[in-house]
Amino acid sequence: METLRVELGERSYVIAIGSGTLGGIGGAVRELGGVSPRIALISNPTVFGLYGKAVESSLTEAGFETSTIIVPDGEEYKGLLWVEKIYGELLRLKLDRRSVVVALGGGVIGDMAGFAASTYMRGIRFVQVPTTLLAQVDSSVGGKTGVNHPLGKNMIGTFWQPSLVWMDMDVLRTLPERELRAGMSEVLKYGVIWDRDFFDFLSEAKGDMLSLDAGALARIVRRSCEIKAEVVSKDEREGGLRAILNYGHTIGHAIETLTGYTRYLHGEAVAMGMYLEALLSERLGIMDRGGSVEVRAIIDAYGLPYALPEGLDAEAMIGAMAVDKKTVGGQLRFILPEEPGKVRVNEPVGADDLRSFLDSL
Amino acid sequence: METLRVELGERSYVIAIGSGTLGGIGGAVRELGGVSPRIALISNPTVFGLYGKAVESSLTEAGFETSTIIVPDGEEYKGLLWVEKIYGELLRLKLDRRSVVVALGGGVIGDMAGFAASTYMRGIRFVQVPTTLLAQVDSSVGGKTGVNHPLGKNMIGTFWQPSLVWMDMDVLRTLPERELRAGMSEVLKYGVIWDRDFFDFLSEAKGDMLSLDAGALARIVRRSCEIKAEVVSKDEREGGLRAILNYGHTIGHAIETLTGYTRYLHGEAVAMGMYLEALLSERLGIMDRGGSVEVRAIIDAYGLPYALPEGLDAEAMIGAMAVDKKTVGGQLRFILPEEPGKVRVNEPVGADDLRSFLDSL
Repeated sequence: METLRVELGERSYVIAIGSGTLGGIGGAVRELGGVSPRIALISNPTVFGLYGKAVESSLTEAGFETSTIIVPDGEEYKGLLWVEKIYGELLRLKLDRRSVVVALGGGVIGDMAGFAASTYMRGIRFVQVPTTLLAQVDSSVGGKTGVNHPLGKNMIGTFWQPSLVWMDMDVLRTLPERELRAGMSEVLKYGVIWDRDFFDFLSEAKGDMLSLDAGALARIVRRSCEIKAEVVSKDEREGGLRAILNYGHTIGHAIETLTGYTRYLHGEAVAMGMYLEALLSERLGIMDRGGSVEVRAIIDAYGLPYALPEGLDAEAMIGAMAVDKKTVGGQLRFILPEEPGKVRVNEPVGADDLRSFLDSL
Repeated sequence: METLRVELGERSYVIAIGSGTLGGIGGAVRELGGVSPRIALISNPTVFGLYGKAVESSLTEAGFETSTIIVPDGEEYKGLLWVEKIYGELLRLKLDRRSVVVALGGGVIGDMAGFAASTYMRGIRFVQVPTTLLAQVDSSVGGKTGVNHPLGKNMIGTFWQPSLVWMDMDVLRTLPERELRAGMSEVLKYGVIWDRDFFDFLSEAKGDMLSLDAGALARIVRRSCEIKAEVVSKDEREGGLRAILNYGHTIGHAIETLTGYTRYLHGEAVAMGMYLEALLSERLGIMDRGGSVEVRAIIDAYGLPYALPEGLDAEAMIGAMAVDKKTVGGQLRFILPEEPGKVRVNEPVGADDLRSFLDSL
């Protein structure tokens, strides 16, 4: 098992990456120290069916009285209604300030359990056990929690760091291939925003990755987490640098909003966003000519979509971007690559420039 | 106008105490720097009717486009339902990450507006304009936000420091006398837990205080805020020392719970809690004999109740204390005075000792 430390002063924590390590979770939670005997495990029916018993047994063997809260599968349940149900369960279970919440699942479970933990009794500890590639390389690390509001995605949330992130590569074997590919989208993002060598490695590692080669998987997850940890350590609350992680997400979120969050997985929308933001960067003269072709090629190689879906209106896209959390004072800002491995943060783009760019597609 | 600074590193902020200063709020918010043009003011019908227009005008004159969100009067609205409505309004108003929420009201408004601000877009700034004595000397300072859950009071919340606390002593002139007296309860608490001289001053200042003498008011509010600021600066998240502020609240909360939060004001329940916890301390041999009589005398002098209400069952009281946030691992802990001005923090008290104490009353 490999470990990485996210350096955030008194909020620092460890990311543990291994294979076949799920049964070690109980001992790892015990080692956090001063944990109350009652623990809540939050999961969804699919993931719990596959891995719930193993995690429960491990927690029980480590001496915890474990109660499980099951939230239905899907982004549509990531809202205040279910958070309120979780609060009720935590209170009925009499979890106290030294209790720990364990999130077993993908990004929806992690975001919602993290939000509930951050606001229960003004904040209790929580542990992430991410079971999708997307959650492993992105949402489980960095402390963003959140739920959706009918008027906007992830509009309600907190910054609340986990106390531990526990990753078992073996759980990816049961992940549907479409979700595995979608998770690669955030991995490719790290290559574009931070690390040309990693970008090149990913171009070559496609076969190993999609066949779930253990070495390739661990290297990819580890390097992704390293990059995210480095960015988050420098800018925990997204005052500046951290916005770099939103590359592909400005256009990606607009696509998700306008297609009702059902047509594309998050990673697929981000893939389109990454290509379109690279192309926008090239048109604005920020990215070297040909750069967007490189970005498109690697997206395509992993079987992810890159072209803007038919029928999306430019005006509606701009409207959707205007309610994005990244928008301040109505000014649209983008993360625009100069070349793979290097980006500019928070570049303002005028609505007219954006409109003519979208109309040209 | 006097100012006090709450030292919390990058989360430090100023408490401004004055008379007739309400119209300066707009300029003070402007001086926070980098504030988006749209501001949300959160208040209740009573307070807004008295002071809303003055605050709105001041904000407007300072160049802010101000929208007001009115929450009905009363503790029963301090729940997730109204927080969700506030989120909806903030989104409709398109408040962004640089926007500020201004809370104009007592503890209910401050706690709820603070919680909404702390979780909207993962946290935006908020300003407290407390209009009750209780909010001025206690809830507006220190960064505890929260709402009630059907299974427990203030069970959902965050630590989120205000960016500014703006206090105008003149607003206390419209406060009902019962609320003024109840607010004194937290003031007396500071004397008991921290400052014998202040305790003695309060014994003598009763007449000036209840007749709203400007000098006495300002001195009392200022010293209360100083003590709270000092405690909070040393222990922001209640890891140890801050628990001292809960003196009177363990029994006080149980009384509130068992009387449905309607019979007593919070300060009245805390007054009873302070006397009973002093008496418990004396019975346990921690407080010098006669200490509880001194505490009772000052509570009585300010016209506050001290005797346990008739008909409250000891077992039910202990049950209500067991779900208190301060309870960890089922062990009941109290803040027990040794003498006025000096307390012991987090003293464990066995359920049997507590039962026989309550039965003896």
